[in-house]
Parts: sequence; C-alpha cells; structure tokens
Amino acid sequence: MDLTRLAQVLRQDCTVEPQQRLVLGFSGGPDSLALLHALHSIGQPLVVAHLDHGLRAESAGEAQAAGKTAASLGLLFCSERVDVAALAKERKHSLEEAAREARYRFLFRVAGQQKAAAVAVAHTADDQAETLLMHLLRGAGPAGLRGMAMRSLPNSWSSEIALVRPLLGFWRQEVLDYCAAHNLHPVMDASNLDTTFFRNRLRHELLPLLENQAPGFKARLAQTADLLRGDQALIDALVEEAWRHCLAQEGEGFVRLDRSCLMREPLALQRGALRRAFSVLRPEQRELDYVAVQRAIDLFQNAANTAPADWFAGLCLHVEGDKLWIADWQTELPVDWPQAPEPETHLEIPIELNLNAGWRLTIRATKERNADANGEAGALGMADPFQVKLDAHATDGDLVLRRRKAGDRFQPLGMAEGSMKLSDFMINEKMPLRARDAWPLICRGDKIVWVPGYRLAHPFRLQAGSRPTLLLRLER
Amino acid sequence: MDLTRLAQVLRQDCTVEPQQRLVLGFSGGPDSLALLHALHSIGQPLVVAHLDHGLRAESAGEAQAAGKTAASLGLLFCSERVDVAALAKERKHSLEEAAREARYRFLFRVAGQQKAAAVAVAHTADDQAETLLMHLLRGAGPAGLRGMAMRSLPNSWSSEIALVRPLLGFWRQEVLDYCAAHNLHPVMDASNLDTTFFRNRLRHELLPLLENQAPGFKARLAQTADLLRGDQALIDALVEEAWRHCLAQEGEGFVRLDRSCLMREPLALQRGALRRAFSVLRPEQRELDYVAVQRAIDLFQNAANTAPADWFAGLCLHVEGDKLWIADWQTELPVDWPQAPEPETHLEIPIELNLNAGWRLTIRATKERNADANGEAGALGMADPFQVKLDAHATDGDLVLRRRKAGDRFQPLGMAEGSMKLSDFMINEKMPLRARDAWPLICRGDKIVWVPGYRLAHPFRLQAGSRPTLLLRLER
Repeated sequence: MDLTRLAQVLRQDCTVEPQQRLVLGFSGGPDSLALLHALHSIGQPLVVAHLDHGLRAESAGEAQAAGKTAASLGLLFCSERVDVAALAKERKHSLEEAAREARYRFLFRVAGQQKAAAVAVAHTADDQAETLLMHLLRGAGPAGLRGMAMRSLPNSWSSEIALVRPLLGFWRQEVLDYCAAHNLHPVMDASNLDTTFFRNRLRHELLPLLENQAPGFKARLAQTADLLRGDQALIDALVEEAWRHCLAQEGEGFVRLDRSCLMREPLALQRGALRRAFSVLRPEQRELDYVAVQRAIDLFQNAANTAPADWFAGLCLHVEGDKLWIADWQTELPVDWPQAPEPETHLEIPIELNLNAGWRLTIRATKERNADANGEAGALGMADPFQVKLDAHATDGDLVLRRRKAGDRFQPLGMAEGSMKLSDFMINEKMPLRARDAWPLICRGDKIVWVPGYRLAHPFRLQAGSRPTLLLRLER
Repeated sequence: MDLTRLAQVLRQDCTVEPQQRLVLGFSGGPDSLALLHALHSIGQPLVVAHLDHGLRAESAGEAQAAGKTAASLGLLFCSERVDVAALAKERKHSLEEAAREARYRFLFRVAGQQKAAAVAVAHTADDQAETLLMHLLRGAGPAGLRGMAMRSLPNSWSSEIALVRPLLGFWRQEVLDYCAAHNLHPVMDASNLDTTFFRNRLRHELLPLLENQAPGFKARLAQTADLLRGDQALIDALVEEAWRHCLAQEGEGFVRLDRSCLMREPLALQRGALRRAFSVLRPEQRELDYVAVQRAIDLFQNAANTAPADWFAGLCLHVEGDKLWIADWQTELPVDWPQAPEPETHLEIPIELNLNAGWRLTIRATKERNADANGEAGALGMADPFQVKLDAHATDGDLVLRRRKAGDRFQPLGMAEGSMKLSDFMINEKMPLRARDAWPLICRGDKIVWVPGYRLAHPFRLQAGSRPTLLLRLER
C-alpha cells in the first residue's frame, strides 16, 4: 500500500483536499487500522469514529482499544454504543442491515458535528469484488453491478458530506502487508459483523475458486464494475431527464406518466422511468423485480385501455389512453373528465349547469350556422369535440342530461341507418373504463343526442335549409 | 418447451413472420434437433443447413444423417464440407473460432441463396448463461455481458438477413425433455465442437456450483444480461453520436478527435469514443484493454501537449492543443500549420511567398496605422494572430524568414526589458511539439521580430508618432 498512490487517489478520485477533515469509520480491524495509519501519515486531518454495536461481549473492550489507538496518534475520538439487536428487531431488519444503518447514521452525524468534508470507510478491492459477485449471484441488475464508488455525493445519508472509499483500489493483501510492515496490531474479529454467512462463503470459497479457474478474475471484475459505473451514471442522468419529460402528475399514492412520451423513449429509459416511479411510491424498497418491469412494459405498449392490473408490492398499473397510472391499490385515482350527476337532469334552454371537476355545460339557441370551425366538423372531433351545433327542431327542445343505462343504443354521426350499442361505441372510441358509467349523455327521451367529447347522433345533425340551431358546449 | 410460447417468441422477439423462410443451422445435436422439429410443427418455412467441419471421422456420417432427418420432414437440405483445421492454421485462429466463422459464413450464404429472412440457431438459456459467465470471468466489460440477442440485425455477417435465436429463453433441460417427449434421437456429440475446455468446465463445474450456492442464479444472470442489452443499446447510440461530434479528421492510419469536444462528453462516452477509434484503426481486434482506455483518458485530460505516447496494439496517442491524434506509430501525421523553408530566405519588401500546406506570407508597406482591428491588438492575439503591423524603421527593411536555431531568444510584446529563451516561449504558448522546429520566424539579423500566430517582439511594436509601417500577414 503505497502512500503516494493513496494520496493521489484521495485527491483525484475522492476529491478530498489536503486540509479537509475526514471522519474515519474505525472498527479496529486491519482495513480501517491501515487506513487510519496511512491517512495520518500523509497529514490528512482526521477524526476517528467508532460505533460499538453491542453485539458481542468483547465489544466494549474493543471500543476502549480503538480510543487508545486514536489517542496514541493525538486524534479526536468519537464513540457511541447502540443496541443493534434491538434496532434490528424494531425495524425488522437483519442484524447486518441494522448495524450498517446505525453505523453510517452515526458516522454522518459525527461528520456534521465536526464539520468534516467527508466520511471515509476502509472498503478494499476485495470487498468490492465480493459485493459485485454477491449482487451478480443475487441478481441486482446493472445498477447493483456498478458496486461501490470511490466518492459518493449525494449519498443515502447526506447531500453535503461525501462518502469516500480511498482503499477501493487496494487489495486486502496489500493492507495486511502494510499492517505488518508498520507493526500495527488489528483486532482480527472486529469486522466480522460485516461478513454474513453468504459473504464469508464468497470470500473463502467462491472467489478463490473463480480466481483459480480464471486468474485475474477479481481484478477484471473490479474493472467491469468501473465501466458499468460510468455507463450507469450516464443512464441515470438520462433516466432523470426522461422522468421529467414523462411524469404528467404526481399525488398521494399515485403517479401518472404520459404513455406516448414513455413509448418514444428507448427501452433502457422506459425501464429506468418505471424503477423511478417505483422508488417514488415504495421508497423503502430497494429493487424492482425484473419480471415486474417487463410486465409493465408489455402492458403499456400493448393496451390503450386496461382495468387496473396487479404490479408489484401492492401497486397496480392502469392504462387510460395516454395516461399510465401507477398507484397503490387503495388510491382513488383523480378524475379529470366530465361526469353526469344523478338522477337525470331536465335541461331548460338556455342553461348553464356546473358539473364535477370544474366542467360546465351550456346550451343556447344560436343563429350562426357555420361561423366558426364548430358544428359538424366539431362533432366529428375535427375541432373542439366538446362543442356542437345541432338541429333544434329535431330535439323539440326536450333534452335531459344523464348517465348511461343498460340497453342504451347510439347512432353516431355518419351512420346513416340503424344504431349500435353505446357500450360498443365507447369501446371503439377507447373511452377510459373508469369514465364510462358516469359519462355525460345529452338525450331526448331514450335517444342519445350527443356524447360530448366524442360524437353527435346522426338524426340531430344540421341539415340544408335554415332551421333553428342549438349550440351545446362542455368546458372546463 | 411449449410450442405456443416458441411461436410467440418467434413473432415478438425474433420478429419473424409466419410466412418468412428461415435457414436453420442444424448440427443434429439435441438443441438444433428440437428447434427443427418445433419450428416445423408450428409451420414455419424452413431450409435445413448443415456444415461438416471435417474434424472427426464420424462427421461425414453425421452430415448424411442430418440430410435424412431433413428429408423425413420434407425439407430442403443444404450441406457443405470445409477443412476447419486448415482454415484455423491459415488464419491463426483457434479451431473453435475457425469453425464458428466458417459455420456462420456458410449459413448466411445459404440464406442469401434461398432468399431467407433470417438464420436461426439453437442457443439455449444455458448457452447464454455460460457465455455471460465466460465473458465475466475473462473480463469482456459491459459490452460482453450483454450476451446473445434473440434477434441481431445488422450482424457480423449480414446487414439484411437477421440472426435469430428462438431458444434463448428455454433451458437445456426443456429441450431435452422435448426431444424425449417427441421421440427424437439427437447425435449427442455433434455440438461438442462448440464447447472448449473452458466452456465445458463452466458448464459442468462452475455453473452448477454457483446455482447451488445461489439458487436461480442462471436465470438472474440472463435477466441481468437482458437489462444490460437495453442499457448498451442506448449507450451505443449515444457513442455513435458523440463519435460524429468529436471526430475531426480521419485518414490512412490515424484519426483526430476534437479534444475539447471529447472532454465535454460524459466518461462513458469518452470511453466509447476511444473504443470506436480503436475499432476504426484495428478492426480485426475485438476488445480494447481497460487499462489502455484509462491511460488515454488520463492523457487527454491532463496534458495539452504531449509527445506521441504508446497506447495499445501498435497505436500511439498524441495531444496537440485541441487535437487528440490516435495513430499507427508509423503514420506521419498531417501538418496544417505554416513551416519555414530551409535555408533562411531574405525577404524583399513587398513580397508574396508561398509556404507549405497552402500558407502564404505577404509583407507590404502600409499607411494605415489603426484602420482595423489588427496592429498591436492582433499581435497580442486579440484579433487575427497571423497578421501584424510593425515599425518599419526598427526593422530597417532587412528581414529574413527562418526556422529556430539553438540559443534563439525572444522579447515578446509586453516584456519591456530583457528576453526569454524562444523554446520557453513556445512551451508557455503550448505550441504543438511537432510544429516547433520549423515554425516560421520573421527575424532581423539574430533578432526575432515576429512569431506568427503568437506574438510580435516588443522593440518592433508601433509607437506614438507617424512613422512608416509594415503590414505582415500569414494566411491560408
């Protein structure tokens, strides 16, 4: 472990300046002891921080020994004891997770108090290789394969204090050699808490085996991780951009993405946006299942209208035209379309009637027939589909506003004879499922005159000859 | 191996239409036998193609058996025998590489002749997992980890005929079960050629071990590869864009990248552009070494002028200001700056003198002193640094054009007293190394009057009072 190289890594990769204070997470094990000694040797200002996890009988003695080591170098020492076992029980975490969480919280709290620029931890290249192989075996995806970074800012614990890992480019053997050369005496069991059963098996069985089968494997794994980190940093930035483009609405328990916008993004960013949505709705969960991502992509690419479909972790997916909803099953999604009140309302013309969500229905007589782009064109959706002119004679002035009923039929403009089921018309027009039951219908008796937003009925269209005309408009 | 699922994969993932003809690479082994039988069962038009690699005594018999299988299904059969051993020797490839190359060439040739839409090969999910783990162990980087695709077009063999792998989502065991269920009798050794010693060890030792340690590992590895394929497709497209932005010049044995442009790109695209440059200059080599990429990035980020430095595979890197050259060591890089001829040239004023690369020196008397933005401002580089006005009296009309000599000193404009070594001046001004020896200098006797492109000498500057003025200009 060469001090010149360490200093260079610290300046260039960790971007720590010579006068900046570091809080060093110090267990007393070989890695953190070597890092403490080496950082002190190159004159970096240091505070030594030790968390007693209270899991083993010897831990209090180890904390004392850690304090002595710090004192022998004339360094400030901060220590604290937590009951990790109780924390783990309370939060339903594994011991390892709870210890990790408590440790980093402690280190960053000390760093804040001591006005340190960064927290330094002593992960080595071996830890990196183990982490990568573990993620690979457990299937954490490309994001997991990037491994640990020399410098993380922002990180999970702070947006101002960096987390740096200056030993990430050094192998464990180099660290042990350094300890031996400088007559340092690490606590050999101190770091065992970090090593779960699975990680221990990786370290002592799998990695040596793979290294033996393909010499240089560990080093190449670290290189692969470094390349992936670069790729992922770029993709993260692009996902953030795609997310901003595609996020249409965000509320309590739901997000709405613009489906057309999402479909124009490349696959990698579609996946990223879905993971982003998941992290917004389920911040406490780490990873979104691969299969769930694929299912979501299949859904929004292949269906323009779906009933809410089960997604992952209690969330549902729901496509309504250009709207892709991702929501808690319990969440009532917002409605932004017009709905008819119950029971049916007789419409005295002229009329102005307030509906839900800021929608208002107005009907009045008019003399203009083709003064603007409305009328038949509008009824066909060629201009504003929420405005229409129709033949007042045909309606006989006797109009009601109501919701659909079983057996409703409709003769849309352009269908010269016969009629179709209203439900089929709604399906053909891809009206959102949630909107259908209460969609406002303008009717004369049993006959549907106008389906606002979609189509006028054929018999009520304006025809040649100047007859009285009604202007109907629905607006927000 | 479910035929409905296979048909779906074929349509959706391989994008092969029901009426499109496929050429199936058929060894007679279980994978290709099952694929042949299954594709035939779902009614896909097929041509069966078999390459006899001529490496084993039984291979001629196997080719015959393959023909019989095809005939029994009423399918067209194309077969050929090549001497793979001779090919490998000739091209200095391994047997496996030579066989693979010969096989795909044959399959795509048949596909062209038979007007097939695609070549189908029978790689399974197990082959995918093995390939990925092999790449991971050997360190092929993120590009290697993406593994094989269900559909590749363009591919290494064609830009029109796709390569499809419909079995990539099925495990070998499913294939074997299919063969058993349909009473198919594969040639069990036929595919052994594909399996090198290393791959065999992966298949029979490492993968089972890893699967045992982390159940589901193989499946997750395939998922990771799928995610990486998506990420890499995006990154490839961005690299292509960055390459177009940053490529300034391309010639026999060299490329020149715009260094400022490259430095503005994110790390992942810098790496990609370097790999792209490498593939242009060394198309026959597959992978650029990780360390070589890092070295190149360190070089162009930290030095504005370098001597040519060794890179990789007989290439060198060379930074000249905004120019990053990547070139064969043997290649003479283009020169686009002015150079002085030898021996020195006496300049009779007025003069027009043609130099190298389209450069021309003109000197004439002028009466304007400050008519435009030239003059002192220009000499200081504030306008065109290749144009200057100076005091004709001071020069005495006695000017020469020459290259630098040992011991040359220079008193740049703004240095009121003393002088500096011309070589130091050139270093300070970051003049490209290659340009220094023959850079054109305008001198009076031993005194340097003007270093075109950089600075006028202080004693020759225009001063108060109207004195005769010379206009010197170097232009292309």
